[in-house]
Amino acid sequence: MIDFPHIADICQPTASKVIMLVADGLGGAPHPETGKSELEVAKTPNLDKLASRSACGLTTPVLPGITPGSGPGHLSLFGYDPVKYIIGRGVLEALGIDIELSDGDVAARGNFCTVDSEGKLVDRRAGRISSLESIPLCEQLNQIDVPGIDMSIFPVQDYRFVALFRGQGLTESVTETDPQILGVPPRHVEALNPAAEKTAAAANALIERAMEMLGKREKANMVMLRGFSQLPKLPSFGESYRLNPAAIAAYPMYRGLAKVAGMKVIPTGHNFQAEVDTLRQNFQEHDFFYLHYKPADAAGEDGDFDAKVQALEALDKFIPSILDLNPDTLVVAGDHATPSILAGHGWQPVPLLIHSKLTLGEGVEAFHERACANGSIGRIPATQIMFLALAHAGKLIKFGP
Amino acid sequence: MIDFPHIADICQPTASKVIMLVADGLGGAPHPETGKSELEVAKTPNLDKLASRSACGLTTPVLPGITPGSGPGHLSLFGYDPVKYIIGRGVLEALGIDIELSDGDVAARGNFCTVDSEGKLVDRRAGRISSLESIPLCEQLNQIDVPGIDMSIFPVQDYRFVALFRGQGLTESVTETDPQILGVPPRHVEALNPAAEKTAAAANALIERAMEMLGKREKANMVMLRGFSQLPKLPSFGESYRLNPAAIAAYPMYRGLAKVAGMKVIPTGHNFQAEVDTLRQNFQEHDFFYLHYKPADAAGEDGDFDAKVQALEALDKFIPSILDLNPDTLVVAGDHATPSILAGHGWQPVPLLIHSKLTLGEGVEAFHERACANGSIGRIPATQIMFLALAHAGKLIKFGP
Repeated sequence: MIDFPHIADICQPTASKVIMLVADGLGGAPHPETGKSELEVAKTPNLDKLASRSACGLTTPVLPGITPGSGPGHLSLFGYDPVKYIIGRGVLEALGIDIELSDGDVAARGNFCTVDSEGKLVDRRAGRISSLESIPLCEQLNQIDVPGIDMSIFPVQDYRFVALFRGQGLTESVTETDPQILGVPPRHVEALNPAAEKTAAAANALIERAMEMLGKREKANMVMLRGFSQLPKLPSFGESYRLNPAAIAAYPMYRGLAKVAGMKVIPTGHNFQAEVDTLRQNFQEHDFFYLHYKPADAAGEDGDFDAKVQALEALDKFIPSILDLNPDTLVVAGDHATPSILAGHGWQPVPLLIHSKLTLGEGVEAFHERACANGSIGRIPATQIMFLALAHAGKLIKFGP
Repeated sequence: MIDFPHIADICQPTASKVIMLVADGLGGAPHPETGKSELEVAKTPNLDKLASRSACGLTTPVLPGITPGSGPGHLSLFGYDPVKYIIGRGVLEALGIDIELSDGDVAARGNFCTVDSEGKLVDRRAGRISSLESIPLCEQLNQIDVPGIDMSIFPVQDYRFVALFRGQGLTESVTETDPQILGVPPRHVEALNPAAEKTAAAANALIERAMEMLGKREKANMVMLRGFSQLPKLPSFGESYRLNPAAIAAYPMYRGLAKVAGMKVIPTGHNFQAEVDTLRQNFQEHDFFYLHYKPADAAGEDGDFDAKVQALEALDKFIPSILDLNPDTLVVAGDHATPSILAGHGWQPVPLLIHSKLTLGEGVEAFHERACANGSIGRIPATQIMFLALAHAGKLIKFGP
């Protein structure tokens, strides 16, 4: 999958079980006043104790200085080269609202905007109209019939929606319509190659009909489409590592990312407690579990240092019940850092912990950035976590005689 | 050879001398009860003192989590990309018993097995018959005449032997005969492409004649062949680095690996004392010496923590006499870790020490995994050790103007 072409030759299916707990936005950065990161401030006795009995290190999601979106962040954790395998913006938006995408579907990220009487942009986000206002507009757009294509509109939030094009011979190779500046009309969709004419025509038909429908309105009287994309063709995670993998995630986007990798998605509830219950109930059915914890990222995105500390402390309380399942290997990793001082994703390295019966004498004194920097794993690309996870679970044989 | 295509442009022959001491299976892992690794427990005052005056670090033989066999482990140390250059199982087995392989020869790893009256496998290893029993059987098989081919059988140990096919137009592109399960007959050798028909026919002829010869026996009445392979075409180590290299190893497999890389192999005795004597006697004749120390790996493979500690302590006693030769650069490295807790090769990073007159202020306090993690070299792929060794010996000029 990544930089080791022989992986399939050395993977062996075994009864051992691996849990990969992904704490979204796990890594942080020191607070300017205290010099301590969120993980250093958080009281996480269970994670600290676990770290003391684990192999620890720091991971780089893409490259130093490169801040990954959720797509590349997760693909790295699953072992896919995030530079090679790209998940488009439209597809990611569709996965985020639980749209079932099929091969060949083209998804675009759409948004309402406002144009003047000459059709020139005056507000690229239509005054950020609320979902209350946009949902009926999406329903209207959904009535549009594009000949030869099955076209659907799905509201996302506020002024944003997803336009899904389904049919034969569609492609993502078309241009976007947002000119990124005001005072000019939105662009037409253009085909980047002859095979993309059909897709461009379908998208332009949607835009023209939308203009007719919405044109009388004062604001939100036009739409723009960006990020046309199709599901990337990823090697199957399960086949590549000879695993029977399952994903448990309360948020749709992460279920979607797991589905793109070919994992089975187990239905679960709306919070981490529900996820852990689902894990327990299904623990016998699979040999690999991707378990997603969202709140640390959400708090970091809000720039709320204390809330992120609390989210990490809340995660810590679940560690004993996960350990109670007695997995052969427990990985605690993050898809990227979300330092509160950035109020967004960051490029900083992300703490990593791998616990197995082989790591009992290997640990560091706590689970945070500074301690993990001295761990036995050192700093590795996140794409290599899976090799270590499989090795610790006894699922890799020797490479080469 | 590896990821730096300009290496030949910047290598310069000099009178300086490099010794690369390879302690096989050097790296270990902490004992679960004490939290200390074999190297941490071992009393190695000479290595510790040397580390304090050396550049230290940790090396990754292939990738984190990937456990190398001896082939990839050594190729990495010599600077060959172990993912690109593969030494097959048959070739490695042949090298291990000192068979002189020529380009084009095909070597297979053979073993005696037991089949029932219908030819179905009942024991894949023929009750692990002893060498006492298998050597006469190998002599019998050696009488087999395969038309157009020079075929030889060499006993290895117990139920294992090497089948060597020599002649025009042979290739390794044939299938193995071990079905890996009982209750079915061994498979036929099949050509993987039309050019491999001759090799497949020769191998099948051997198997058929062996069946006739051995068929009346109760056990060890059949043979199986695996790992058909030919010498890989490696760039010459000496030409690549502009060195006049020599290898000194008591065990045949390591002499064979050096020969594959194009090094001159100097005959030596059966233990490390003999190797060091050979090194001293030949020190004026070469500018690079690969010196192999086996016992640490053997003890680790046995899962014997204390024996590995002793093997490392035994190695330590030889360090002064190696330093007495006053090499311009002394490298102490390992081809892979062999942690006693695994009783086998491991994926763990391997301590590295490079001593030259330039490293006198660079050292760490001891030579073990934890200390070397804080060394000035950091963590590097083992394929980059040669660059550092050459640089410290003044054998590399500036790259680029």
